[in-house]
Amino acid sequence: MLTKNEPAENEPKETSRLEAFSDGVFAIAITLLVLELIETLHTQTNDGLMQLFVTHWQSFLAYIIGFITILVCWINHHVALEYIKKIDTNFFWINGFLLFVVTLTPFSTAILAEYLEKESRTALAIFGFNYILISIAADSICTYACNHHLIEEKHREFYASYKIIYRYAIFYNIVAFLLCFVSITVPIILYVILFAAFAAPKAFAARLQKIKDRKKKKIKRTNHTPGK
Amino acid sequence: MLTKNEPAENEPKETSRLEAFSDGVFAIAITLLVLELIETLHTQTNDGLMQLFVTHWQSFLAYIIGFITILVCWINHHVALEYIKKIDTNFFWINGFLLFVVTLTPFSTAILAEYLEKESRTALAIFGFNYILISIAADSICTYACNHHLIEEKHREFYASYKIIYRYAIFYNIVAFLLCFVSITVPIILYVILFAAFAAPKAFAARLQKIKDRKKKKIKRTNHTPGK
Amino acid sequence: MLTKNEPAENEPKETSRLEAFSDGVFAIAITLLVLELIETLHTQTNDGLMQLFVTHWQSFLAYIIGFITILVCWINHHVALEYIKKIDTNFFWINGFLLFVVTLTPFSTAILAEYLEKESRTALAIFGFNYILISIAADSICTYACNHHLIEEKHREFYASYKIIYRYAIFYNIVAFLLCFVSITVPIILYVILFAAFAAPKAFAARLQKIKDRKKKKIKRTNHTPGK
Amino acid sequence: MLTKNEPAENEPKETSRLEAFSDGVFAIAITLLVLELIETLHTQTNDGLMQLFVTHWQSFLAYIIGFITILVCWINHHVALEYIKKIDTNFFWINGFLLFVVTLTPFSTAILAEYLEKESRTALAIFGFNYILISIAADSICTYACNHHLIEEKHREFYASYKIIYRYAIFYNIVAFLLCFVSITVPIILYVILFAAFAAPKAFAARLQKIKDRKKKKIKRTNHTPGK
Repeated sequence: MLTKNEPAENEPKETSRLEAFSDGVFAIAITLLVLELIETLHTQTNDGLMQLFVTHWQSFLAYIIGFITILVCWINHHVALEYIKKIDTNFFWINGFLLFVVTLTPFSTAILAEYLEKESRTALAIFGFNYILISIAADSICTYACNHHLIEEKHREFYASYKIIYRYAIFYNIVAFLLCFVSITVPIILYVILFAAFAAPKAFAARLQKIKDRKKKKIKRTNHTPGK
Repeated sequence: MLTKNEPAENEPKETSRLEAFSDGVFAIAITLLVLELIETLHTQTNDGLMQLFVTHWQSFLAYIIGFITILVCWINHHVALEYIKKIDTNFFWINGFLLFVVTLTPFSTAILAEYLEKESRTALAIFGFNYILISIAADSICTYACNHHLIEEKHREFYASYKIIYRYAIFYNIVAFLLCFVSITVPIILYVILFAAFAAPKAFAARLQKIKDRKKKKIKRTNHTPGK
Repeated sequence: MLTKNEPAENEPKETSRLEAFSDGVFAIAITLLVLELIETLHTQTNDGLMQLFVTHWQSFLAYIIGFITILVCWINHHVALEYIKKIDTNFFWINGFLLFVVTLTPFSTAILAEYLEKESRTALAIFGFNYILISIAADSICTYACNHHLIEEKHREFYASYKIIYRYAIFYNIVAFLLCFVSITVPIILYVILFAAFAAPKAFAARLQKIKDRKKKKIKRTNHTPGK
Repeated sequence: MLTKNEPAENEPKETSRLEAFSDGVFAIAITLLVLELIETLHTQTNDGLMQLFVTHWQSFLAYIIGFITILVCWINHHVALEYIKKIDTNFFWINGFLLFVVTLTPFSTAILAEYLEKESRTALAIFGFNYILISIAADSICTYACNHHLIEEKHREFYASYKIIYRYAIFYNIVAFLLCFVSITVPIILYVILFAAFAAPKAFAARLQKIKDRKKKKIKRTNHTPGK
């Protein structure tokens, strides 16, 4: 589907519109979460105002979780697209899949808010399934950008670290998802660790890069010592 | 309505705001679809959570169809506006018509979700009517841009291919729309083919351009053979 | 409140964010209109699907009117801000007032949809009041930009034409508003004319400019004939 | 979490996406307020249209307050980010906290609309708590930008004035919040003063800067008089 037969000078413009559209989707998805919070005001108006915060604590917790999830997604999307200079039609679709999962997040958050007490495991598993989809989308973006030379050659090695962290995240999320059917606390702890790691994807990837560099040097040294 | 008597140096700025506004509308329309999904949580809370996915399968199917529809629209809008360097007031209105149809799409999607089982043919026909409007809007944008020299001369021939594919799409959509009153499976197959074709409009137009070039060469050769 | 004591080199950036924020508000306001349309699906599900379009014709009419209103506003905002190169804090507030009226428009539209049959005159008058506010906001933006030299000197004379058309629009809208309490058809005709005039504000202002130029020349000629 | 080991040339792009995302969130939050206003139309349709404005006056008042709050936030965000040229991952999170509070504002506004008559003090206190969070977020942004040298050296001193006004705003808001439990009119007056002061943060900071400059000169003069 790659289109190579038309002029290339328009390509920087392409990235900016993709970013503007994606930013719009992220911004709306993160702000729509509040509608579910406002909904709680309409369902129950007989009790006192402070009582509302007590009865609907799951809505508030879900709101915070949903907000952080989409914010982490946006930060990672920002970082992943930073080095991408040109895009093609396939990339629109891979990015579109990520946006699809992002727009689903307010729905998963609403499920969390309404079923956290009644069916806590299923509700958590659905949210966990959302995370699996997010990590698959993030991995697809990085892998495609890497393999199709959408990023500048000098940044490619650093970028490969992103690819690795998102690939690992898929397996991590599958494990956390399966644990949802057995326990509640274990997957929650796993998700908190996940948040902490992907809160600063650049630093995370840079740390990984350093470890790789050190390993390489070691291998180089062990290979070269007899020769030199 | 074309305004020629004021300075032209501001025109690149014009395109960027039109794109920003359009991107906003696309982003919101595609994200609002999730509200209909969240609605399903409020209408029926007695059943189990997994039961919800079974009873409301039409809502989820409609959500996916609506999302892909608006994403395809955005990709085509992006590609159509890529070569347009200057715009006039008429173009605002033609683009406004496209945005009008895009903002209607969440409504058609909601109809699909609620009436797919009860009145499947009518619901599909309404969604099909939406497609006719989209293709008319896309055709209008390309035809206007071509005829009013809003695109650079060197890209004009390539751009003419867009005009042709969107023109054909109108007739294609009218046929599919009429078939909705007779059958369900036939229009669905037609729409899937439509999605596949317009998923990568650039590649689609480039392929068309190649066929045209080949034909031209053939005609040239047949015309020139006796002369040379 | 004008701030003159800090560096000026950041000012082009200022305009772009104001436009981005305004575009966002316009895009959301225009897309939120569809929610009222989707609402009609939830209030009445017993009748057939085609019946829905018959019973809720006011909602569809209001949707179209609301959409065109906000689109006309956006086009006029775009044109008004095109020549503005620098802004100050006061301008944020004047622009904020316009955005306030724009965000109110979905509410006026919803009133139109629900009360067009029951209390047609009051519903129309409320929508008319919205138009008065819009024209006051548009006039304020142009007058402020003109008087505080926010636009380049060479465009100032042309820009003054905008100021005049928006000033006249205020009085026009007040008359139309008052007529709402007496008649239904007369204000509707007046609003259609208003739409047609402000659909292309640039051409409208250019035509006005031409008339002014012709008058000037005439006066010049009559003044100079005996002298020269 | 600061990432220093990758290239810096992409940084101007970073700020623009952060601004675009933030603008999106501000624009949506400010426009979503109208949904609460439209809600009033659905809850009560038996009375006349003019009666609606009388019964739901709190909704309209809350709408205006919510709109001004988010607009003031946006103006201050705009001014605070104007001089920031580069950002890091921590800044995403500090900005994310501000956006979190901004998205909460439609919820606080909805509380104000529904509980202003029933539990006026609690409703006002919740809105006041929202203000405390906003001022903490604004202070965090300025303090972090100042301390981590995200702004150009030449603007740093001026920028420090912002830091001071937002720091004072925290304490001011805490006092106003506590007064909500005792009185209604006193905190309202305090909030009106707050709005007036932060309506033009640049002018406010410039005035503060002038006072500081005058003091400095005085100190200099008193210190230098015996020496010279």
